[in-house]
Amino acid sequence: MEDTGLYLDRMRAAAPLVHNITNFVAMNIMANVLLAAGASPAMVHAREEVAEFASLAQTLSVNIGTLDPAWAEAMELAAQVMNKAGRPWVLDPVGVGATRFRQEVCARLVDLRPTVIRGNASEVLALAGIAATGRGADSADPVEAAEAAARDLARRSGAVVAVSGPVDYVTDGEEGFRIANGHPLMPSVTALGCSLNGVIAAFLVGQPTLEATVAALAYYGLAGERAAAGAAGPGGFQSGFLDALHALRPEELTAGARISRA
Amino acid sequence: MEDTGLYLDRMRAAAPLVHNITNFVAMNIMANVLLAAGASPAMVHAREEVAEFASLAQTLSVNIGTLDPAWAEAMELAAQVMNKAGRPWVLDPVGVGATRFRQEVCARLVDLRPTVIRGNASEVLALAGIAATGRGADSADPVEAAEAAARDLARRSGAVVAVSGPVDYVTDGEEGFRIANGHPLMPSVTALGCSLNGVIAAFLVGQPTLEATVAALAYYGLAGERAAAGAAGPGGFQSGFLDALHALRPEELTAGARISRA
Amino acid sequence: MEDTGLYLDRMRAAAPLVHNITNFVAMNIMANVLLAAGASPAMVHAREEVAEFASLAQTLSVNIGTLDPAWAEAMELAAQVMNKAGRPWVLDPVGVGATRFRQEVCARLVDLRPTVIRGNASEVLALAGIAATGRGADSADPVEAAEAAARDLARRSGAVVAVSGPVDYVTDGEEGFRIANGHPLMPSVTALGCSLNGVIAAFLVGQPTLEATVAALAYYGLAGERAAAGAAGPGGFQSGFLDALHALRPEELTAGARISRA
Repeated sequence: MEDTGLYLDRMRAAAPLVHNITNFVAMNIMANVLLAAGASPAMVHAREEVAEFASLAQTLSVNIGTLDPAWAEAMELAAQVMNKAGRPWVLDPVGVGATRFRQEVCARLVDLRPTVIRGNASEVLALAGIAATGRGADSADPVEAAEAAARDLARRSGAVVAVSGPVDYVTDGEEGFRIANGHPLMPSVTALGCSLNGVIAAFLVGQPTLEATVAALAYYGLAGERAAAGAAGPGGFQSGFLDALHALRPEELTAGARISRA
Repeated sequence: MEDTGLYLDRMRAAAPLVHNITNFVAMNIMANVLLAAGASPAMVHAREEVAEFASLAQTLSVNIGTLDPAWAEAMELAAQVMNKAGRPWVLDPVGVGATRFRQEVCARLVDLRPTVIRGNASEVLALAGIAATGRGADSADPVEAAEAAARDLARRSGAVVAVSGPVDYVTDGEEGFRIANGHPLMPSVTALGCSLNGVIAAFLVGQPTLEATVAALAYYGLAGERAAAGAAGPGGFQSGFLDALHALRPEELTAGARISRA
Repeated sequence: MEDTGLYLDRMRAAAPLVHNITNFVAMNIMANVLLAAGASPAMVHAREEVAEFASLAQTLSVNIGTLDPAWAEAMELAAQVMNKAGRPWVLDPVGVGATRFRQEVCARLVDLRPTVIRGNASEVLALAGIAATGRGADSADPVEAAEAAARDLARRSGAVVAVSGPVDYVTDGEEGFRIANGHPLMPSVTALGCSLNGVIAAFLVGQPTLEATVAALAYYGLAGERAAAGAAGPGGFQSGFLDALHALRPEELTAGARISRA
């Protein structure tokens, strides 16, 4: 993989308009994360305008957190626009293992060929059809347990699949990478995983999918490491994390990224 | 009442999955408060999945802040699941005195026997059927004015009733407690009251209702005192409050709780 | 214009109940901004109660950010109540140029005679019927380009029109003011523009529209300058901004406001 910082540099130069159809918990922090990273977020979901708005966006992020049928329809409409335009979209299958409704909606969304699917180990296992033990948005499975499922899901769906955890795993079904950046305080702030999907969507614009996803995860994790250094707890960490996303320079990402082939 | 810190210790050991059906203003801070305290929050409301998800949760928190009929139905469905399973649920009757719609929804919810009802003095007075002067989410009545109404509401509903204010009051209709922890900056951050109901819901899992509620209020107020010590205003306070919820140890709660029988 | 700080002083003395019908991204920060400034925010939108609640509020703020038809109907119902009662209301036409749905909803809302319309240059241009290049919530047009459109929109609608940017412009169609307060970090925090509309709504209660709007913009921008002085990035800035809104005294506003006739 080439210089990791270049992916950040090009994302900021593009400053893409990221269309997010996401959950109520994540809306605000996700917009702030995208602004701090250097992208331009927008949240639009009504059936009356979601396709028209998607046609203006360079990239799309879909998150099923606080799902209902009208929002699921909006997700499908927007994903179809991105597919037709040849533009990327990212799926975050929050809590997919928890209810039948989530499984059905996710099955329809995976059929719409997301460019990237990112979840925790339990979500990736559930999505790959393997019984998982996750509950809500928290993972009860280690990343390693989901690696084979991730490769299988990537091959079947055509998506790059990313599994978040202490060490992240990313695969296109053939190649794989592990990203060791990150900090234990990150899961103690809500919706940082959701927000990461917006950042991945931003990195995908005009960049190769597998490498851009890996670079986005390294950038996000490294910002978490920086923020943790000065934080007394999850409140200070959230504030410092936005500052770190904003301040981190491409050459610092190149130097600090801990990426290895898996 | 036994050692207050033990209630915090047992809540953290249980790390319960708290199902929240709450308002749009509170969603994010409520999830962050629960994560900082040591519980596992989830927000799910669609009719298609709310009962199924409730059956996975150890406890439920219901808040009528940004109410509409579909959300009210979700609240009823989830409360019925908790009742059937013998699991606790907490009601936050935000602004119940303001509109007929809120009064009707709250009447139906109180009929579903919440384990705990927590509100400000105006809300408790309104819920007890006494004309109150509250407007929106802010209370115009002092806590003392609501103590008799709280006891009456507790006897009629079977719930433990908590009245938030400078000194909180908690009663099961027979016994009563006052909790003097807290800080004047707390009402200057939105949705800290809403978020407290999630914390109460977490404390209720496997613990006696009256004492667990009192302990949750003391924990929350003590974290507020700590956060205020280092805060220049409501912005810094919010951040420091999450840090304090996270850092506070059971023995510190035991030492700092200011609980008296009323 | 008289002493700018007096407008802040009178707003805090009134501590008005501000009814907000706003987007999901802005809900939390908007409530926190209003609390920090000294007003009392409430968010209510259901058809079953929105008119009844509006009748309790001194002022209304409407924001079309995450629009759908039910929310648009709520906005119209509440605006009608304010008109009938002779009370002020403020319109934030977020991303009005992006979709036909937004244009149609905004046309209906402008017909309901908002007291103040505030947007960025792209939004004001779009609302005035001039082709604009804005996308989502970010402006691609400079404020100066929108000044003629703002005057035209003010004359046609009867509203005071405010254009946000590095230097704000406010006009009633005849007189105009420029407000040079503010800081480049402000657009890097999401929904600070949305939240400003709530503050304008609060300032309008019992005060002359044009001058109250100008004073609200100066107050907001000056708080941004203060917060930026101590901020390492957008995370720290957001927290410090709430602290500054809370701490800023009327005499400091009088001294720090940079208002000129345009």
